[in-house]
Amino acid sequence: MRGCKSPDIDFLIIGAGIIGLSTAYHIKSMSPGSRVVIVEKNPGPGMGDTSRSAAMFRVFFSSKTNMILAKSSVEYFEHVEKNIGWDLGIKYLGYLFLVDSKELENMKPALDEAERLGGSYRIIDRDSLKNQGFNVDVSTDPEASLMGLPDIEAGIYIPRAGTLDPDSLVRYYEHAFKALGGEILYNTEVKRIVLGPKNPLGIPGEPFAWQDIEAKGVETSSGYIEARSIVVAAGAYTRELLEPIGIDPIVNPKKRQIFVIRANTKGLTDLLNTKGYNAYNVLPFTILPRGVYIKPEIGEKSFWVGLSDNLGRPYGLEELKAEESFYRYSIHPVLTKYLPQFSQAYPDAMWAGYYDINPIDGQPVIFMIGNIEVVAGTSGSGIMKADAIGRIASALALGYDEVELYGGIRIRSDMFGLVRRYIDPEKLIL
Amino acid sequence: MRGCKSPDIDFLIIGAGIIGLSTAYHIKSMSPGSRVVIVEKNPGPGMGDTSRSAAMFRVFFSSKTNMILAKSSVEYFEHVEKNIGWDLGIKYLGYLFLVDSKELENMKPALDEAERLGGSYRIIDRDSLKNQGFNVDVSTDPEASLMGLPDIEAGIYIPRAGTLDPDSLVRYYEHAFKALGGEILYNTEVKRIVLGPKNPLGIPGEPFAWQDIEAKGVETSSGYIEARSIVVAAGAYTRELLEPIGIDPIVNPKKRQIFVIRANTKGLTDLLNTKGYNAYNVLPFTILPRGVYIKPEIGEKSFWVGLSDNLGRPYGLEELKAEESFYRYSIHPVLTKYLPQFSQAYPDAMWAGYYDINPIDGQPVIFMIGNIEVVAGTSGSGIMKADAIGRIASALALGYDEVELYGGIRIRSDMFGLVRRYIDPEKLIL
Repeated sequence: MRGCKSPDIDFLIIGAGIIGLSTAYHIKSMSPGSRVVIVEKNPGPGMGDTSRSAAMFRVFFSSKTNMILAKSSVEYFEHVEKNIGWDLGIKYLGYLFLVDSKELENMKPALDEAERLGGSYRIIDRDSLKNQGFNVDVSTDPEASLMGLPDIEAGIYIPRAGTLDPDSLVRYYEHAFKALGGEILYNTEVKRIVLGPKNPLGIPGEPFAWQDIEAKGVETSSGYIEARSIVVAAGAYTRELLEPIGIDPIVNPKKRQIFVIRANTKGLTDLLNTKGYNAYNVLPFTILPRGVYIKPEIGEKSFWVGLSDNLGRPYGLEELKAEESFYRYSIHPVLTKYLPQFSQAYPDAMWAGYYDINPIDGQPVIFMIGNIEVVAGTSGSGIMKADAIGRIASALALGYDEVELYGGIRIRSDMFGLVRRYIDPEKLIL
Repeated sequence: MRGCKSPDIDFLIIGAGIIGLSTAYHIKSMSPGSRVVIVEKNPGPGMGDTSRSAAMFRVFFSSKTNMILAKSSVEYFEHVEKNIGWDLGIKYLGYLFLVDSKELENMKPALDEAERLGGSYRIIDRDSLKNQGFNVDVSTDPEASLMGLPDIEAGIYIPRAGTLDPDSLVRYYEHAFKALGGEILYNTEVKRIVLGPKNPLGIPGEPFAWQDIEAKGVETSSGYIEARSIVVAAGAYTRELLEPIGIDPIVNPKKRQIFVIRANTKGLTDLLNTKGYNAYNVLPFTILPRGVYIKPEIGEKSFWVGLSDNLGRPYGLEELKAEESFYRYSIHPVLTKYLPQFSQAYPDAMWAGYYDINPIDGQPVIFMIGNIEVVAGTSGSGIMKADAIGRIASALALGYDEVELYGGIRIRSDMFGLVRRYIDPEKLIL
């Protein structure tokens, strides 16, 4: 392949989100002689769903697969901060998961499993939660009771978890990729992947169904670009790019929303400044019953609040507009029952993005069909697993059977395939 | 449930194709007291893709899962013909799969596996194939060589395989279902599945994300229909119905085409009347290298010819129009190299339909999310597996852990779930 003159792009990566950047960087560093080019419709890196994420991470899973992906990626990010000196804004806020008595019991085996895999947690009792301002006994409230909201029995606190700055992270990969000679074409939208015959005969109308078919390049808003291999790391747009050429990538986007609430009352300020959990003396990333989550934003003195709704929330691309009514009717009623401090709190800002969901097991898909690689389905945990995913995708694209993740663990590069998946299911979906 | 007054439909089945009819019939026969209603947009049964199928079956698979589904269904169909006296038009024509030397060697383990599972086959040698009019030595032809077509080394003949009449089959299930008191609403198109809260509070805007959500009924071209459970057996339209309510069914439709060629020359008539394979003294269902297949239509004195193209053929719903150019440029060139009798043969009629494909393993998906059941993804083998699929879907809908298929084999009713699938992959994709 090295001796061949045309086309001169070896790997064309679609998407400069965190997954595309990590994959491109690792391909370029595993194969420095290859010409690697990213095409991205936005004017800069990580401007799609990467930037719309709550950007949380945790090194606490009951699934070995998840643990490996998250642990090796987070350790790499720490290495980038400490040894390379690139500030990624990593903050160990911790996760605080509030559960009722039934859920606590149901979760026990998964918590034990996570501990065996090296994760740690501690139980926060009801009294401590009460002192921190949580209303743990909601069932005395007739409205909460009618809503079917359970009393909180305990908090599960996970210290090895937190947030980072997605913009810093994508800038790091962009910088590292470019430093190796990688190229990025911004403002370049891929309209379609172009197929052709592996062995062209020069007959009009090729490729025919009896020919071996492969990708030849991409048609973009700036013209046609030829390439030897194409890596689709387009997140929510993966399905839209692949269905027309006859590939079903399994993954499907679903709209997710984040609402910003200013801590502009004493109650909310006190809640934000909850002590005892982390070095910042702020509330951890908190998940209430029914999945409503609250992320403290220290600098902004605000909370990001969200809820990943499932049945009833359509799959597919749609208008990316946050719905204030969703906050008002689906989040606020739950939020205020457990945290009455929010009773007068309405969003100051809000936005919508997509989760790129693998509806089967919530794990990424990383597979090749001929010279087309698909890296997708990060299902809302793409940032925290990005480095490992990039290494696996890179190894698979370069034809290696195995790959070494940061920290030294070696895994099969085909373990996230479509047909055969070597993964164990996650029981701790927080 | 029996004592509850409203809604009075227990199971509403969307789709009166072969899968919907088989499922409805088995639900009604396993639970005679339930009110079971099918809604179908067409004016009669099986008028969608069931009627557009080549309607082939084989009891020859390397996958135990496939073998169980096909064997028990085909034996049930034989029972219907012999013991119930309903003519299904079953004809054991046999399958003749023509392979090159490399493929023959690669297939050996899968053929052995199929034999171990009770399938039988015999090898047809090159000379016999030559005598039957096949051009087995295509590589001496410079054009065929340029096309990369391989010489045929042998034929693999599978006797326990053939065709049946899909219209008779759906009429049988329709009759049996109605005889038990089942109801069918034809000319009734489901526009959308309507969700609502499990425990309604009477607040406008329900259901909210904190409520337990379930299906309440369907909006149809003839108005709203309430039901306790909904079974989606809508084939190619499964994704279109489920994505809007937040369920990704994994399955995705792909257009398939059949071209009818009249046996109007001596060469084609001789080929049609190939002796020695079956009781009808006609050519078996024949699969050429590159997947071009030929089905003899005895009464019509014609051949049905098709090819299931993959990479390059879009997924998704599209205009269902057969493309003569597909026959001309993607089928005819291959067909004529192996069977020069077709050199002047062009289609007399043609049509397009959909395969409802499970892109992961080609096996059906049968799963429940709350009170919604999905029975789909038959991937082009729905007719031959229809009875088993209907029994499994029925057992799952009725809450039974296990189900007995025709012939007495018992299997788990959740074996075709989305997340956990208890299936072994097929190696003999004919």
